[in-house]
Amino acid sequence: MWEENVRKVEPYVPGEQPKVNNLIKLNTNENPYPPAPKVKERLLTLNYEDFRKYPDPTCDKLNAAVAKAYGLKKEKVFSGVGSDDVLATAFLTFFNSKKPILFPDITYSFYDVWANVYRIPYKEIPLNEDFTITVEDYLQENGGVVIANPNAPTGEALPLSSIERIIKENKESVVIVDEAYVDFGAESAVSLIDKYENLLVVQTFSKSRSMAGLRIGLAFGCEKIIKYLNDVKYSINSYTMNMPSLELGCLAVEDEAYFKETVSKVVTTREWTKKELKKLGFSFADSKTNFIFAKHKSVNGKFIFDELRKKNILVRRFDKERIKDYLRISIGTDEEMKCVVDALKNILGE
Amino acid sequence: MWEENVRKVEPYVPGEQPKVNNLIKLNTNENPYPPAPKVKERLLTLNYEDFRKYPDPTCDKLNAAVAKAYGLKKEKVFSGVGSDDVLATAFLTFFNSKKPILFPDITYSFYDVWANVYRIPYKEIPLNEDFTITVEDYLQENGGVVIANPNAPTGEALPLSSIERIIKENKESVVIVDEAYVDFGAESAVSLIDKYENLLVVQTFSKSRSMAGLRIGLAFGCEKIIKYLNDVKYSINSYTMNMPSLELGCLAVEDEAYFKETVSKVVTTREWTKKELKKLGFSFADSKTNFIFAKHKSVNGKFIFDELRKKNILVRRFDKERIKDYLRISIGTDEEMKCVVDALKNILGE
Repeated sequence: MWEENVRKVEPYVPGEQPKVNNLIKLNTNENPYPPAPKVKERLLTLNYEDFRKYPDPTCDKLNAAVAKAYGLKKEKVFSGVGSDDVLATAFLTFFNSKKPILFPDITYSFYDVWANVYRIPYKEIPLNEDFTITVEDYLQENGGVVIANPNAPTGEALPLSSIERIIKENKESVVIVDEAYVDFGAESAVSLIDKYENLLVVQTFSKSRSMAGLRIGLAFGCEKIIKYLNDVKYSINSYTMNMPSLELGCLAVEDEAYFKETVSKVVTTREWTKKELKKLGFSFADSKTNFIFAKHKSVNGKFIFDELRKKNILVRRFDKERIKDYLRISIGTDEEMKCVVDALKNILGE
Repeated sequence: MWEENVRKVEPYVPGEQPKVNNLIKLNTNENPYPPAPKVKERLLTLNYEDFRKYPDPTCDKLNAAVAKAYGLKKEKVFSGVGSDDVLATAFLTFFNSKKPILFPDITYSFYDVWANVYRIPYKEIPLNEDFTITVEDYLQENGGVVIANPNAPTGEALPLSSIERIIKENKESVVIVDEAYVDFGAESAVSLIDKYENLLVVQTFSKSRSMAGLRIGLAFGCEKIIKYLNDVKYSINSYTMNMPSLELGCLAVEDEAYFKETVSKVVTTREWTKKELKKLGFSFADSKTNFIFAKHKSVNGKFIFDELRKKNILVRRFDKERIKDYLRISIGTDEEMKCVVDALKNILGE
């Protein structure tokens, strides 16, 4: 039977993208604010006649715009179809050892999916009781390391010195630092790419740049590691980034003032939400992201999740033993978060 | 060293996307006509504020539009980032046997690249002297079959009865029929997907739909085979198709009249070009695509390629022994093809 040769997998389940309106959607960590205003201007001048041509496979213009914004050479930048595409390609490129790759047991739930689909051996390192990471756990023999910083869905960030130690003491492996949420308050390892050639830093336009719908992810590293990544990319799909993403992506990264302003608004709202959740009896790590991963002192997570949904508020919950009572609540606008807090008061009878 | 664990590959080299203007670009089989007019209208109404949200990971709206145009159930349709993404995902999903997969020695040059990057054993079957395919060659033991129909870069098409025989006599394997160019004159195997569950047909919006810049590829198959493909897709990148592609793709597939009109224009220009090339001493297979793969009776291919380039005409040439004297010339507008013919007359001293 032909089915015997099919690659059997357990796919990642993305957060729901419901088609109903009037929903407060706080389940996929989207940014509540629109992209930079110049994205709108450029969208209006895109010429549909150019769609007939292939886009630039090297993503030169976008990589150059990113490089300029980050003060890097463009040869140290790689673009892909969201950070998932970048991470998947990086797993395939760099994790070819027989030794297991290492990542936390509670982290971005795509890591074990990629390891499974590409048949990469892996070892999940349990987070501490309080969801912190012990750096020493990542200094054992391995075929690679992947660390989300800040971690998801916990929101907890490691200081750059800890990240640097993991990179420095793993010179035999590639260390991938997944910084999807770094702009909301953690320290980026991009500053280390010239110091360690085994470092690959991955970021995304989907959160802090409000461009989830355009699918733009980035990797930063030394020229050599970026070259290896490009070789594998060109062995799968030469033209991954379409013309609208290449053109509009440039404008999303150029407007530093708008970027800082919206990030700061999200952070302010997050800190307000933390205070309110605390008053309601929730506990959570000190999130440096655009979400809060919170657990109530007495009411179970599934119940709160379902009650919020009845009130048209959608958050995220993971059916995994250690975290089943936690809710991951994305930070929306002030108004949306006030609605969430009011709804929680109502549900908890306060 | 970390480099020992890097996947070493020989990447595919895409046709050049030069940044200079005033070039007659006939090297990547792009359509000379713009996409359907409604694509333009919809582009103007895209709301940039929606970019902050993730696109629909199921591609429901696009798959439904494609299904409607093809008279199929949407569960039999899969969308990806160009047919390269669809084919790469299909190779990874369906070719997991220890037996070699089969494809011609002269065909789309990405097949061996995918086989190499995913470590899939393969066997290249030599085309006959005249670049035709002998069906019996594909009835030997294998771990899968991939046939481009029409074949690229030769342009030669197999009748549907031959394709059906390959599918029918390979029930133990998946047979992928790559129909990137089918709309320009060959018979599609989409009509067979309900008859053979081991069949996957791949098409693209990049040629006949003039949407190369948007990166939209399709697969058609029975619900079961499409489900397997989706499982692997969701194990690599949930959100492959961005919002502009999902929205604009629908409009590119709805306008049947425009589609037929532009395809027919390309075909008419192709037939005119064939006559002119024949007069100039070129020979070629009877192309059913939007390109002609031609060889001159006495002047070598590299020379003609270089001379055309000097005249700002870019075509494609492959540095592979059996076909090194051939030029692959994409079909542009009538005007462009007249320029090419005039340039060739000049180069050949006629």
